[in-house]
Amino acid sequence: MSETARLKLRVGWGDCDPAGIVFYPNFFRWFDDATAHLFAMLGMPLPELQARYGALGIPLLEASAKFAAPARPQEEIEVRSRIVAVNTKTIELRHEIFRDTTLLLSGREVRVWAMVDRTRPQGIRAEPIPAEVAARLAAAG
Amino acid sequence: MSETARLKLRVGWGDCDPAGIVFYPNFFRWFDDATAHLFAMLGMPLPELQARYGALGIPLLEASAKFAAPARPQEEIEVRSRIVAVNTKTIELRHEIFRDTTLLLSGREVRVWAMVDRTRPQGIRAEPIPAEVAARLAAAG
Amino acid sequence: MSETARLKLRVGWGDCDPAGIVFYPNFFRWFDDATAHLFAMLGMPLPELQARYGALGIPLLEASAKFAAPARPQEEIEVRSRIVAVNTKTIELRHEIFRDTTLLLSGREVRVWAMVDRTRPQGIRAEPIPAEVAARLAAAG
Amino acid sequence: MSETARLKLRVGWGDCDPAGIVFYPNFFRWFDDATAHLFAMLGMPLPELQARYGALGIPLLEASAKFAAPARPQEEIEVRSRIVAVNTKTIELRHEIFRDTTLLLSGREVRVWAMVDRTRPQGIRAEPIPAEVAARLAAAG
Repeated sequence: MSETARLKLRVGWGDCDPAGIVFYPNFFRWFDDATAHLFAMLGMPLPELQARYGALGIPLLEASAKFAAPARPQEEIEVRSRIVAVNTKTIELRHEIFRDTTLLLSGREVRVWAMVDRTRPQGIRAEPIPAEVAARLAAAG
Repeated sequence: MSETARLKLRVGWGDCDPAGIVFYPNFFRWFDDATAHLFAMLGMPLPELQARYGALGIPLLEASAKFAAPARPQEEIEVRSRIVAVNTKTIELRHEIFRDTTLLLSGREVRVWAMVDRTRPQGIRAEPIPAEVAARLAAAG
Repeated sequence: MSETARLKLRVGWGDCDPAGIVFYPNFFRWFDDATAHLFAMLGMPLPELQARYGALGIPLLEASAKFAAPARPQEEIEVRSRIVAVNTKTIELRHEIFRDTTLLLSGREVRVWAMVDRTRPQGIRAEPIPAEVAARLAAAG
Repeated sequence: MSETARLKLRVGWGDCDPAGIVFYPNFFRWFDDATAHLFAMLGMPLPELQARYGALGIPLLEASAKFAAPARPQEEIEVRSRIVAVNTKTIELRHEIFRDTTLLLSGREVRVWAMVDRTRPQGIRAEPIPAEVAARLAAAG
């Protein structure tokens, strides 16, 4: 049964461009904030996961969005996020951003469980997601 | 014959996250900078297009990226951008970001020619790309 | 009697730099968000002021901050903002950012009431703050 | 004799707000980029200093700016940066941003030489600037 995290945000003046609408990379910033919110909602705040497992983070393999309507300064919007797949080393998330009942955009992220790779300078390598983390994510998906 | 714009950038300290690598929404910011650079290279700087045609801008319908390798503070990277399709109201661009010969990520943007729609408060509507602009873009693609 | 607006925020992963702490320009972004929040609390949301008076905004003449302690990903912080002076054309604000009872930084902004100046291309000029706006701001300071 | 680093930048569409001018926190981001550029010009790129001395970075104690004129999308601007004081643990920098001969703003940063403090969780503490770094900075100031 799918659990959806809901993160409310207010669009800032500086999040918008000279057309008066949100500059689109900020929507991906909010996807990232919403991912952290989802992990916290599942009882696994990212800073704790990083401390416990020595994970570097969950960087992106893929990200995409389709934009349907713009957002403007001081509007309240909501990011709705859920897990749609848990693989050995990767997680797929779906995000939708609404203003009231209007869907502004929908997007997708594929993230990888990443550890420091000490065999190479500044190395990063994908690792299997720890079993209990994967189980909790799969239960939420 | 395809014309490729090349925009060199240096990764800033603040562009990177606690994992020490570029926070991914910044890559989309650089796609946007590279799109402006491409239009300037084609002799049509965006501020001039906006002034001449009353266009609001070229907001996004779709954006996506696939990430292959991270970038770190003070690295010099290059965004290579080209037009891959010109439709009646939309343009499709492809961006690739390299550090030396290493492809860090590739991405795609679909942008729409947007005008103010005075029939609705804060309205924006897609319009056909002016013929001479479309011709110049198509010649570059 | 001074009215203080309180804006709660959660520090994002991407708001922090490779040292693991907030990249300092983001604190100024939050000062800006907090200024909008203060105006809304006083019953004068900035988008309404802009629509009613044709104001371009309240851009900065001066901004400064003194930093006492860092903030990290997922921490909840609070921006406390108040008006400390209302002059003919300018407003002075003070912001303090706390995590629980720890003061992280304090800052100051001087902002100007700005209108479009149609006598010059892309002109902006300072104007006297409308009397009812100034009165409401002064009452809050 | 004072050495001035000059960093040329092009203002991005997304660096500007609905008033069509640079959103002010971005100027502080450019101060930060310019500081990195200055250190590189002095033969001490920050990533090398961090690797050699184990320094966490040079976070801010104070930052301020006075704004004289706005900047707009696609304008080329130049950040001119120099060191004005080197103290035991801190450095003071001055930045000026120009568009051609027009001074847009001037600012000041006080930064501290910061190391990880292993006696406290996530501790950071100020340390004396290594002698050879301080000497090189002082010679440039």
